[in-house]
Order: sequence, then C-alpha cells, then structure tokens
Amino acid sequence: MGALDLDRLWNGDRRAIARAITSVENETPASEGLLRSVFVRTGRAYRIGITGPPGAGKSTITNKLASLYRAARKSVGIIAVDPTSPFSGGALLGDRVRMTDVDLDEEVFIRSMASRGSLGGLSRRTMEAVDVLDAAGKEVILMETVGVGQSELDIAGAADTTVVALVPESGDSIQAMKAGLMEIADVFVLNKADRAGADQAVMAIQMILNFRKHDGWMPDVVKTVASEGAGIDLLAARITEHRAYLERSGGLRLKRRARIEHRVRELIAARLKVDFWTPDRHAQLERRLDDLLELAVSPAQVADELVADFHRTHNGRG
Amino acid sequence: MGALDLDRLWNGDRRAIARAITSVENETPASEGLLRSVFVRTGRAYRIGITGPPGAGKSTITNKLASLYRAARKSVGIIAVDPTSPFSGGALLGDRVRMTDVDLDEEVFIRSMASRGSLGGLSRRTMEAVDVLDAAGKEVILMETVGVGQSELDIAGAADTTVVALVPESGDSIQAMKAGLMEIADVFVLNKADRAGADQAVMAIQMILNFRKHDGWMPDVVKTVASEGAGIDLLAARITEHRAYLERSGGLRLKRRARIEHRVRELIAARLKVDFWTPDRHAQLERRLDDLLELAVSPAQVADELVADFHRTHNGRG
Repeated sequence: MGALDLDRLWNGDRRAIARAITSVENETPASEGLLRSVFVRTGRAYRIGITGPPGAGKSTITNKLASLYRAARKSVGIIAVDPTSPFSGGALLGDRVRMTDVDLDEEVFIRSMASRGSLGGLSRRTMEAVDVLDAAGKEVILMETVGVGQSELDIAGAADTTVVALVPESGDSIQAMKAGLMEIADVFVLNKADRAGADQAVMAIQMILNFRKHDGWMPDVVKTVASEGAGIDLLAARITEHRAYLERSGGLRLKRRARIEHRVRELIAARLKVDFWTPDRHAQLERRLDDLLELAVSPAQVADELVADFHRTHNGRG
Repeated sequence: MGALDLDRLWNGDRRAIARAITSVENETPASEGLLRSVFVRTGRAYRIGITGPPGAGKSTITNKLASLYRAARKSVGIIAVDPTSPFSGGALLGDRVRMTDVDLDEEVFIRSMASRGSLGGLSRRTMEAVDVLDAAGKEVILMETVGVGQSELDIAGAADTTVVALVPESGDSIQAMKAGLMEIADVFVLNKADRAGADQAVMAIQMILNFRKHDGWMPDVVKTVASEGAGIDLLAARITEHRAYLERSGGLRLKRRARIEHRVRELIAARLKVDFWTPDRHAQLERRLDDLLELAVSPAQVADELVADFHRTHNGRG
C-alpha cells in the first residue's frame, strides 16, 4: 500500500481497511511492511471475544452490542470466524436479515474470515486483521467465533474480555463446562432467556462458578434476549466493569504481553518452516516416502535425518 | 514398555493397549521407541472417520457400526475426539446408555482423547493412538470427531473412508456444505431419517453433489435411524464399496502416503520447536517483550532476530 493509502487506513477509511486486510490474508509481498506499520499503531482498541456453542445467538449478540457501541459514538470493527455465523457466510440466508442493524453503518467495519487451515480456530491472519482494525482507529473490536475445539482457547488469548454465550436448552451449560468454555469466560450470557429453563440454567452456571477459584474477578451471568435487544445494555455494562478491573489490576498489560509473545512464537514457527522446506529437502522427503510406506523406517527416523541435514546446511550461515 | 508388554500389545491385550496409548498421550520417555515399534506394524487396519455437526448422532452411528463389525467377528477400535461425544465424556450422562452396546465387549477398545491444545481437531497424539490400535491388530478403527472448524480436514486426512453424518433439520446440509464437510465426505449419512424433511434433505445433498466433479467415486447418501440400528447395514456396505474402490484405484496407497508425509512434517515442526526454544532463547524473548509492549519494535523484527541467532548457534553443529 502506498503512503496515501496508509494515511487513509490510519483515518479509518473502509476501502483502505478492506484492502489492508486482504493484503494480510493473502500474505502479499507488501503485507510484511504493512504489518510493521500497523503494529506500532495498535494497543488502543478494546478487544471483545464472543464465543459459545452453535445456536447460542452469538451473531445476534455481536450485532446488538455493535449497535449499542455505535449509539455511544464508538467506532466498531467486527471479525467473524464462526463457520455457522451469518457474518462469515456460514449460516442460512434467512439469518442474514439479523445483521442489517449494523452492516450499512459506515463506522462499523465487518469482516468474515475463514478458520480453515489455521492452527486452530483463529489464525495468525485473523489476529493481524484485528491489528489492522485497531491501527485504523476502531475503538471496540468484536470477535465472534464458535466455541468448539481449539477456537475457545484462541479467543481467550486474543480478547481482553471473553463473553461466553449459552442458551437454556438442557445440558448446554454442562457441555460448555466440559468443553472448556467455563474456564475462559469473563462474562456469561444466558441468551434466549425468555425460554423455559432459563433460571435453572443461570443457577447451574453460578453453582459451577462458585466451585472455582477466582483471583479478583468473579464472572457472572447476564440474561439476554438478544433478538429483541433485551439485556444487551447489562452485558455492555458488565464488559465495562471487566475492562476497569483489568486496567486497575494490571491484567490488561499482562494479556497484551501474552498476546504479543504468542505472536512472536507463531512468526518464528512460520519462518522456521519456510527455512526448512527448501525444494531440496522436500525432494529428500519424497525419496524416503516409499521406504516409509514399506515400513522400512519410521516417521521419527526420517524426521531426525532431515533435521540433522537442516542444522548441517545452516552451518556457517546466519 | 517391556518386551512382554509389547508381545501383549501385538496380541491385542486391552490393558497393554491402554498403557501404550497413555504412554503416547503423555509423551513418556519410552513412547518414542514404542512408536517406532508400533509404526512398522501398521497398515493393516481400515480407518473410518465419522464426522458431522453436533447432534447428528455420530456416537450412535459409531456404536452401531462397531456392533455390526463385531457381529462379523472383526476386532474394532474406537477413538472419540468429539467434545460433545458420550464416548469422550463430553455429553450428558443420559447419552451414555447408548454406548453400552459395545463398551463391554472385550474385542472393542474405546478411547476418548482430548482435542484441546492440538493443531486442530485431531492431534498428532490421536494419530499415534490410532497407530497403536492398528499395530495391536484391530481390523477396523472408527474415529469420531465433531465437524466444526479444523477437525473435518484432519479426519479426512486421517481416515481411509470419511463418513459425514447429517440430520434432516432445516439448513443442516447447507451449513455442512459451507463448513467444508461436503468436500470431504466419501459417504453421507442422513441420520434420524424418520423425521420430517428427510427426503428433502437427501435431495438437497444429492443436488449439491451433482454440481461437483468426481474422479471415479461418487459419494451418495445413506438414510439411517441409528438409534434403532436402521440403515447401518447399508452404511457398512457403502463403506466396503468405497474401500474396494480405493484398493482398485490405488487411492488407498496415496492416502497412506499423504498421511505418513503429514506425520513426518509434524514431527519435524515439533523437533524444530524444541531445538529453538532453549532457556537462553526464551530469555532473549522475555527481554524484548517490554520493547514490544512499548511498540518500539514489531513482532516480525523480534522473530527475525531470534531466528538469526538460532542459525548462528547451530553453526558447526549437526
């Protein structure tokens, strides 16, 4: 991107943001320099992760939260990496109508990103796109991701405040607990709280919370009916309280530190992979694959051979 | 494991299998040697992946398929990495009763494994556990995993035949298509086919399939009511046809080759990580984290510094 485009990006221009994120997603030659410029402008946005099982209403909550922040004149960025999210094109066409509250608003930038092929639910690219939004002056960034498998750990690392959305349906809270969602929530949302079983579900979550240790911050449960906007103000208030707690306790700095450390580690792994997999070393592996198929050697032996070759080759370089 | 234990393992002794998998899961010092012995005994088991969205009845299908193979006197191994599966302890207690068809059978070995902290839904450990079952003489290995995010790509790589389970509920097939499940299915199961909308769902899947290119194998849809065992025989027959197709076309060898290549690449990445993150290099990163937090350098610059140091350090080694 040229200097003019960069100026537009720092001013929050939608097309400049879109181009920058595309550049990052596609790892264009220019993206590395772009990311260096972006990084030194980060650290101002507040990052909120919204996760939970499919069907918990994460997109609706994200949408209504964005509307509320917009009403308070905050600029908002949304990154959706949920394969079932209408933001990211994964849901039914019918669900798309729910998004129109914010998606025509100039000050809300929405981007869906693929979760596939990444190291877990949120890829390095996704984190870099969030940085682009931060550098472009978005004050609040909402990250929506489905809470299954790896992604909930990623979002807890990527967010300042992690919101876990559940619904009253039987066993949902127990499943969430087992799937690790209970450990990462700073705020719980019991969405669709007008359905039967809502109060029992809230009680179940609170009972589980009471059995856990908390160091200063006690996650509690906000009841919402997000489709009608009910309870979203309470959710936003609770997020604000958590932010104040993090700022007071120094936790915000620790979270950012851990996030940056993780980023450096990921970059190093990517660089080592590029350095390692030269055409020559790839050919070496190809030659050994027949031996492997005939069970004449084990994968560990071949890995050892290639790593030894790597260290030999870098002898004298650096 | 001692020589006696290894003999028991090759003979399919349950306790020896359990101990071997635990050793692999915990990466005990003995596990590396164990895996070398295991690897050269693999390649005989047929590996079937069963995936799909939560609620599609994957565990029930897995259970009924296992019973059917047992009735045909084949020994069976089951690996469940689905956080919502009753096998892996993720589901409601009530669901557990469904598993009792096979879990008391001496010739069925069931193991649940965590999906967390891995590179996607199936970790290297999981693949190694499947190898243990293969080397222990299991003729059929069923791998059950929830089809969200990364895991469906993993299972398609790990399985000889990939079964995708869906239910008639509206939009399920469309969601599956968008989430990438359509691309990996060798066989579709439309489970709970006694519910309303089953025939429409089958037609929707078939329409999507007709628009895709197929190189010799055409995935089609088997209707089941797994809870009653209905259609499981048709599913097993279709899996057998796919196996015959793979053996005839040479596809089975290509799949195994790709699987082994992937394994070597993962082992290399793990070894490079260990080689890289010495206490000294970890301390170097620690020292740079404050500069990063003050935005004085970018993550990419710090990554470059540390990688350069790594290559310098390995100068003269190897």
